[in-house]
Order: sequence, then C-alpha cells, then structure tokens
Amino acid sequence: MTASPASTLGIDLGGTYARAAVVDAAGAILSSAKSALEDRSPPSVVESVSLAVDEALAGAPGVEVGGCGVGAAAQLRGRTGHVLVAPNLGWREVPLGALLSGRLQRSVVVVNDLSAAAWGELKAGAARGERDVFVVFVGSGVGSAIIANGQLVHGATGVAGELGHTKVVPGGRRCGCGEQGCLEAYAGGRNLILQMNEAVAEHRGGRLLELAGGDPSRLSPAVLEQAAKEGNPAAKEIYERAAGYLGLASANMVTVLNPALLLLGGGVLAHAPGLFRSVEEAVAQLSSWVSRQELKVLPAALGDEAGIIGAALLAREG
Amino acid sequence: MTASPASTLGIDLGGTYARAAVVDAAGAILSSAKSALEDRSPPSVVESVSLAVDEALAGAPGVEVGGCGVGAAAQLRGRTGHVLVAPNLGWREVPLGALLSGRLQRSVVVVNDLSAAAWGELKAGAARGERDVFVVFVGSGVGSAIIANGQLVHGATGVAGELGHTKVVPGGRRCGCGEQGCLEAYAGGRNLILQMNEAVAEHRGGRLLELAGGDPSRLSPAVLEQAAKEGNPAAKEIYERAAGYLGLASANMVTVLNPALLLLGGGVLAHAPGLFRSVEEAVAQLSSWVSRQELKVLPAALGDEAGIIGAALLAREG
Repeated sequence: MTASPASTLGIDLGGTYARAAVVDAAGAILSSAKSALEDRSPPSVVESVSLAVDEALAGAPGVEVGGCGVGAAAQLRGRTGHVLVAPNLGWREVPLGALLSGRLQRSVVVVNDLSAAAWGELKAGAARGERDVFVVFVGSGVGSAIIANGQLVHGATGVAGELGHTKVVPGGRRCGCGEQGCLEAYAGGRNLILQMNEAVAEHRGGRLLELAGGDPSRLSPAVLEQAAKEGNPAAKEIYERAAGYLGLASANMVTVLNPALLLLGGGVLAHAPGLFRSVEEAVAQLSSWVSRQELKVLPAALGDEAGIIGAALLAREG
Repeated sequence: MTASPASTLGIDLGGTYARAAVVDAAGAILSSAKSALEDRSPPSVVESVSLAVDEALAGAPGVEVGGCGVGAAAQLRGRTGHVLVAPNLGWREVPLGALLSGRLQRSVVVVNDLSAAAWGELKAGAARGERDVFVVFVGSGVGSAIIANGQLVHGATGVAGELGHTKVVPGGRRCGCGEQGCLEAYAGGRNLILQMNEAVAEHRGGRLLELAGGDPSRLSPAVLEQAAKEGNPAAKEIYERAAGYLGLASANMVTVLNPALLLLGGGVLAHAPGLFRSVEEAVAQLSSWVSRQELKVLPAALGDEAGIIGAALLAREG
C-alpha cells in the first residue's frame, strides 16, 4: 500500500450480503458490487466478500487501490478486526480482520457499521470539516457514534456508542439484547413495529391495520407516524414515548459531549420526519443551554452509502 | 520553556482563593501557596494568582519551572484561556489566559477545574495508565470529565462533561443553572442540603434536624445518608432519588462511552460511602452488558489536589 493511494476498498458487511466498493480519496464510489451471503460460516463469508471485491476492482480498471476498510454489524475488539459478536451472522469470536487480509492480500481495518457510517459523514458527508460530532442512527435498531477531537471514540473494548442500550426505563420493556428498558426497545424501528403489532393483537390498534392496507407486514414507522398524527391512541402512545425517550437521550448526550453537530441518520428518521423534528425540538429544549450555543442539527447526507464510504476512508488513516 | 522542564506550575482558581503549586513531572507537589481573593475583579485576581505563584516558586528554590496550567471553576472557550462565564467569580468574557501569561511571563493553558482534576487522576492518580476514562464528581455540584483515546474531550465550545445538567426529570426541580430537572438539582451536595432544609421547613424531616445536632447549618450529605439508613422517610426519599438518578446517569454514560474506568470523586461521594456503592451497583445492573466487560469502578485518589496537579501536568502537553 502506498502512502496515499488514489483509492481504497470499502466493505459493508451486513447479515444478508456483503458489498464492496472502490472509493476515491474524496469519498466518491468509483465502482461497487454486492454478493449475497448464502452460508454465514466465516470462510464462506470471506469468500463472498472476496467475490464482491474482485467484481468491484474489475469495475474500476487502471485505478490504484490501497488498503481495505470494513464496516461490520458487529461488536469488535479494537481495530484488528476481531469480531466478538455479530448477531446477524451468528458469529462469536471470529478473527475477521486476519481472515480477510489473508484472503485479499491487503491491509484491513474493521470497525462497526455505525462508526464507519459516522466516519463517512465526517469525511465526505454532512459532518465534513467538524471535529466534534454526535451521530444518532435510528434504523431497525438505535445506535450512535462519537467523534471527539476529530477522532472516532471506540471505547476501551471497542463498543462505545451503544446509545440504543442506555436504559430509559429501568426494569422496563424487554430489548433484543436481553436487557430491559433500553432506548431501542421503545424507539428502534423493529420495536416500533413490534409495539404496533402488539396493539393490533390486543385490539388497541383502532385504524392502525387499515392504514397499513390491512396487511400486518406493512406496519411501519411511517404508518405509525401517520396514525399518531390522526390521533390514533395506540399509535400516539407508542410514537410519543419513542419521540420522548429519543429526544431526551439525544439532548443529554449533547449536554455531556458538547458537539458542534448532532447528525441524525437511519431509515426510521428518514421515513418519519416528525420524529426527526421532535428530536430536534427536544434537543433545543432539554440540552443544557451552554452546550448548544453553537450546535447544528442536520440529517445524515450519505444514506446507505455512508458506511461503505467511511470504511474505505478509514483504510486511509493507517 | 524547555521541552521537558523539571517541573511546571499548577494553579487552582476557585471562587474564594487561588492556589499555586510547583509540580514535578511525576505529579508530586514540591511547594504550594494560597492567596485569598478579596476583590474578584480580573486584574486583582491575576495579582493574587501572581502572589501565590511567587510564594510557591520561592518554596522550591533551584528547581527549573516551565509553563503554567490553570484549572478554573469556569466555562471556557477552547484552551486559550478565554473565560465565558465563571459564576463564582462573577466573570463574563474575561481573557484570563492572556492576562496571566502577560503577568507571569510564562505560557499558560487554562481548562475547567474538572478537566484538570481528571487529568491529574489520569497522569498521577487512580486512572494512571488508562486511555478511556469517565470521571464523575459529586461535590456541591455534579460534574464529569471524559478521557477518550488518552485525550480530554473538551467539546466544540469547551463545555463537554456537564453530566450534572443532563435532564433526569424534564420540567422537574429547578436547578442553580436556571434550567429544570437537572441531575444536579437532585443529586448535587448543595441541592441535597437544600432538599433536607425544605423537608425540615415543611415538617417532613422527622429526626433529620436532630441528627445534625439541631443546627440546620450542619445538615450534610453524610447526615442525609445516616438518616436514610435509619429509615427517616424524607431522607430516604431524597437520598434514594439522588442515588437512583446518579446511578442511572453514570450507567448510561458507561454504555455510551465504554470506558475502561469509571472514576468517582468529589466530597459528597467521599463522605456518603453508601452513595458511592449505590452508583457502583447501578452501573453493574444498568449499563449494557458489553460495555462493562472490563470496566473498573474506583474512587478518585488525589482528592482536592487532583486539579492543581492535573493543571500543572497539562502545561507539559503543549
């Protein structure tokens, strides 16, 4: 790897597919490819990644490509790429970084998917030029990433940023993580839908199912927001509770971290704009006055590409 | 200033006095002096600091002394030493760093008192050798400091760490900062005493005043803890609420920051050991499982000296 290659590889490793992209120094995707993960055993996933990488490289002929950055939906130890747990892949204790660098014959850094996305937004998206950023992602889960002094905060064991598992109701609603009362159990997309289904099953749903065309599989955060606006009591309860906890948690992190920018991303916030606004309002009301003097609140700009771009740009950091 | 002087100056600037100390590279205080602040106008405070510095220097003859670090009970902009607000001094917008470096003819860095104390603990106290530390101080107020990747997190405008002003009850109890429902309004030492006095005034105090020898001015966090243990209902309510909010806030910060060490300091935690234990227990129960796998919880080691030692050691960082 040269000191400053024209481009680097970014890999987005989810639970059902791997994507690879050749990304230039400015964060532009020159070429990308996707490979389904049929078998989730580590050797097989490494093979799928390698296929996607080959295809992405073939799509950018003649481009000098340096190291490789991976954003994985996983809890990792440090940046060596040791996966502690990747629930979507069913992995525990997998030396992903070593396996990949062996197979790809490139230097590999691995970070979790939210850190990669935050880095993408920092270097090529809505957070460009900032040094202190707090990023909240509300998708199927709730996550966050901290950039302080221009650096990602990984934490002592690499799992910093778990805003979704801060407790908002000690002893409260059971979360997918096995603990109780987590923010994610109230405000994550998966749990919003779960709570809507519970309301329907318990005949508290009113027109909720109708708004989803009578099809429970179409219950979504967007449907929830619409139903709450229309005054559906069950929807209002679920929605306002989610908005309240999400807003308070975000406001309190602004108070403690004093970021220049609060960046809000993830599919739920993109498809439920009222939720985005209510977080914005909560932060304006509940963060400490001194901490928000120069605070900006912005939507993430790179959408689903943030992670792969960020992973590739992290490979430049050495 | 040489690259690595034998010692540096540390200054602890409170609301009623300035202390100066000559501190060696290992964080040992070689000499110190204190000067009362009779007049709190900036020129007069600079004069008092200068007197304390001269006396401290005279107490360490022949020692090479480099730059100067100041820990001030103030909100600051960056590290240039521009004070935005220092409530205890009645200051707004005072260029303290420039005034002091002009008077002392030394390079001066200024940080807030809690950052200075956290740095002292990191370099010469209970957090030695760590890179990711969250420090919670419960004294008359509640504050915190974040060390991530071995660096202090100052935030975008220099006011990171205000854990005491995170909201635990939106719209709740009025805080000294003017906002409502802050953690400090329930759990800071000043507010613990205020709440005891309120209980006594409203005849809800039971034996509370008796435990303070009948003297309201002797109501203290230690008295509160004793009364709560004895089952005094008002004391239990105040105490358990404080412990609950303090524990939850600390646990949630552990979840988000994933520090190697949670350091608990300040006079209230030192004099109300049950409160220390209850924070420890809350963190064990309420922080996310993955974030606390290697977490240590320790009391701060340097007490009131942490700030002056940390300020002096920060002056080495350039």
